[in-house]
Amino acid sequence: MESESFAFGPYKIDPKEVFYSTQSSYAMVNLRPLLPGHVLVCPRRDVKRFIDLTADETSDLWLTAQKIGRQLESYHKASSLTLTIQDGPQAGQTVPHVHIHILPRKVGDFENNDEIYDAIDVKEKELKEKLDLDKERKDRSMEEMVEEAAQYRKLFI
Amino acid sequence: MESESFAFGPYKIDPKEVFYSTQSSYAMVNLRPLLPGHVLVCPRRDVKRFIDLTADETSDLWLTAQKIGRQLESYHKASSLTLTIQDGPQAGQTVPHVHIHILPRKVGDFENNDEIYDAIDVKEKELKEKLDLDKERKDRSMEEMVEEAAQYRKLFI
Repeated sequence: MESESFAFGPYKIDPKEVFYSTQSSYAMVNLRPLLPGHVLVCPRRDVKRFIDLTADETSDLWLTAQKIGRQLESYHKASSLTLTIQDGPQAGQTVPHVHIHILPRKVGDFENNDEIYDAIDVKEKELKEKLDLDKERKDRSMEEMVEEAAQYRKLFI
Repeated sequence: MESESFAFGPYKIDPKEVFYSTQSSYAMVNLRPLLPGHVLVCPRRDVKRFIDLTADETSDLWLTAQKIGRQLESYHKASSLTLTIQDGPQAGQTVPHVHIHILPRKVGDFENNDEIYDAIDVKEKELKEKLDLDKERKDRSMEEMVEEAAQYRKLFI
């Protein structure tokens, strides 16, 4: 996996942040996770909208999300999952590359369940600003992200 | 389609509310849509969690959602889609049967994008109360729902 490169819209993702991949999908840790285990699952192909995916890519993406969700819910001792695609700018998409947000959920993690979505939106905007404006001003260090990805990678061996 | 019956957790869905179905999935109009074209896509099998679906069911569910999303975004002259599964009670699921919310989105439809999720949660709770407490106290008439389903059905002929 280390020699591969992963597109995320106009950005290039360090393979060390990727903890699982298939022929057409990959899963990466988040620059600014909202909750433990908040990760993104993306198609390898750089496509903006969900409808742009082929049938094979669509199936693979969601089978991957299902597998990732199962393991991370268990790993983080959660009891539910939020799975969402903000598909297009009017749905809150800021990075123009299809991505599924997966968030392991627990009782009381957000006071109102809805706050999780407010937070996803804010983070999407912040992520874009960070990536656009200052790649060095990451909230998490690369070391921390690489470590998390390494932990998750073990779940899928 | 008229002679089939569709499970939605403990509830039975009138086939007239269903506008598209495959071997393992179905799409229905909403009792209380948040926006024009807010529909639900469900597996036919009565399963609570996303992980409970087989690989074939998972693929079929999302290929169905993709197809539905494409047509309803176009039909409602929208420009984006919100696609979300509240998978388990801690993620806001109230009816214990996997369902994808699909919402065609337009500029300015909700002042803050996040409000759409607040609204999904409120509606899920209201839906459950409605279904539990008083099947006759529906906000929309069956006639209205049947008419909408009939319109959508034409999109998939």
